[in-house]
Amino acid sequence: MAEFHSKIKTIEWVDNYSKMVDQTLLPYEFKYVNITSGQAMFDAIRTMIVRGAPAIGVAGAHGVVLYAQEIEKENLPREDFINKLLEKADYMATSRPTAVNLMWAVKKQKDVIKNSESDIAGIVQELKQNAIMLENEDIAINKKIGDYGAQVVPKGATILTHCNAGGLATVGYGTALGVVRSAFANDPTIQVFADETRPRQQGARITTLELTMDGIPTTLITDGMCSYFMKKGMIDMVVVGADRIAANGDTANKIGTYTVAIAAKYHNIPFYVAAPLSTIDTSIKTGDEIVIEERSHEEVTHINGKIICSPDVNVINPGFDVTPHELIAGIITEKGILRADYNKSIAEAFR
Amino acid sequence: MAEFHSKIKTIEWVDNYSKMVDQTLLPYEFKYVNITSGQAMFDAIRTMIVRGAPAIGVAGAHGVVLYAQEIEKENLPREDFINKLLEKADYMATSRPTAVNLMWAVKKQKDVIKNSESDIAGIVQELKQNAIMLENEDIAINKKIGDYGAQVVPKGATILTHCNAGGLATVGYGTALGVVRSAFANDPTIQVFADETRPRQQGARITTLELTMDGIPTTLITDGMCSYFMKKGMIDMVVVGADRIAANGDTANKIGTYTVAIAAKYHNIPFYVAAPLSTIDTSIKTGDEIVIEERSHEEVTHINGKIICSPDVNVINPGFDVTPHELIAGIITEKGILRADYNKSIAEAFR
Repeated sequence: MAEFHSKIKTIEWVDNYSKMVDQTLLPYEFKYVNITSGQAMFDAIRTMIVRGAPAIGVAGAHGVVLYAQEIEKENLPREDFINKLLEKADYMATSRPTAVNLMWAVKKQKDVIKNSESDIAGIVQELKQNAIMLENEDIAINKKIGDYGAQVVPKGATILTHCNAGGLATVGYGTALGVVRSAFANDPTIQVFADETRPRQQGARITTLELTMDGIPTTLITDGMCSYFMKKGMIDMVVVGADRIAANGDTANKIGTYTVAIAAKYHNIPFYVAAPLSTIDTSIKTGDEIVIEERSHEEVTHINGKIICSPDVNVINPGFDVTPHELIAGIITEKGILRADYNKSIAEAFR
Repeated sequence: MAEFHSKIKTIEWVDNYSKMVDQTLLPYEFKYVNITSGQAMFDAIRTMIVRGAPAIGVAGAHGVVLYAQEIEKENLPREDFINKLLEKADYMATSRPTAVNLMWAVKKQKDVIKNSESDIAGIVQELKQNAIMLENEDIAINKKIGDYGAQVVPKGATILTHCNAGGLATVGYGTALGVVRSAFANDPTIQVFADETRPRQQGARITTLELTMDGIPTTLITDGMCSYFMKKGMIDMVVVGADRIAANGDTANKIGTYTVAIAAKYHNIPFYVAAPLSTIDTSIKTGDEIVIEERSHEEVTHINGKIICSPDVNVINPGFDVTPHELIAGIITEKGILRADYNKSIAEAFR
């Protein structure tokens, strides 16, 4: 198998701060920003300077290190340091409620804090090392996801994706777009159709940018168009990422995903979810238990700061929807492609 | 039944020109523009200063009058006048290829030209009268469509619509939104969910504006959200307009309509098309024969003049899609609600 080399590195720990691509500037500027305090990281996650479930996980882990560095300077007794830091870690986990990777990564850092036998400086060091390990692990996991997923991509396929589950949603390489990259490395006739993904247009702003940066042919379509191209036989498969997956395979992902999944089912086109096991929350039985984040109404009523509708309109802006497991052909993970019955295959993957 | 009085009058013949709302300025300005030449009308239709199948029909009829006034000044022999005008009428009909009402209305004007026994001034006069008659007829037809449609709107319903099949897509009152207006006149607990309708955002720009101007509660959603709200039980029915309907009921409407219809089917929510009989093209057997207009790529890649994606992206921008008849619960016309088998019910309606 040929290997794919991507130009994208989304987030990285450097010395004593976190360096990340400012995704609110895409596609106009591809610019890095340094996050140097815990609160700045909370805000960066909340305002989507960094976004994408796996990238948010690593950002959260970085955030805990930043808080640790700050509290270290307060010269508290070790126990007070630990209690205060655990509190800040819990706060960090609330910056985006839907992404389970954030809670997962913060918990990993909390485990380091609780289990450490070092002094305060030692704990800070261990948190840094753990954060860097999570970064490297994320890329390694994505490459595994990509290679497993590539096995189910037909020769010359056109792959539809929604939102951005790419290198820019992860530390690098991507989950759904990791599948695209691994497939493209071995078959340069692969191409991608990218849903714009209103309201925040991550498909237009981010997916088209990172794929064309990596030389992968990409067609931008508006969200309502997917069925038109499916009916014409122009889409061979759908691959999307996930923000949280329940024990039965129900998958929360960016709003609009569920509509694409229904359209794919109607046209008998396989609909895959690509996500690391850290996105699976086995503590919840079904998608009904997933809290859906309600986001700012301006995301719907304004584009590039300009209103697009009557000022007297009502708005509801759910950030995510849940695609029921029966619409999902497979969940592509670093341990292989999980298939229905998902209750069983997910439980097995965690064994 | 209570009657609804709308503030919207989209297009109107005044003395010797056509006065219309400039819909490219919505929702920022509600401004009228006077169209005083045939070529200006062709351009107004092409650039969507006027849009919506029934409004385009009347605009086309006005356009023929404008050409007649121009050619009248050339002092040609009567036969040359007629031949030149018929040629210009055919040209006018090519300004938007998908909307059958345009061809239908232009044909009505051509019939006036061919059947007239008057001199040139008399023909011009007859064309004016016919254009004004088409205007009045359009409103009368929409009120009938609205009243028939209101009968299938459940008490307190939330009606989802796509694009704008409203007063601003017609001379006034609207087809899909005519159903809303008639229902609302008798039940003020009715409300509307409006799809944004990318790429041109007619749902956001036009539907939310005309409904809130008329005091009807309206919630703006992005195109991918429909399934989310359907699953939550928040949508009771879907009503959309049509640009062309085949003899078997297959319906061409704004791109994205087909996706909504599939989602409605999946959730067992009735999906209605509201359109005058002039939108039905019995000369085509199925939707496969409907030519889909490919529109400017900038509609997808730019919003309010600003690029939203990688400049290296490919674009396909079909203006319409075809919803197959099996997804349609009924076609609401001025002669009642047509139901499957549409081949039969449509043939009967034309009898």
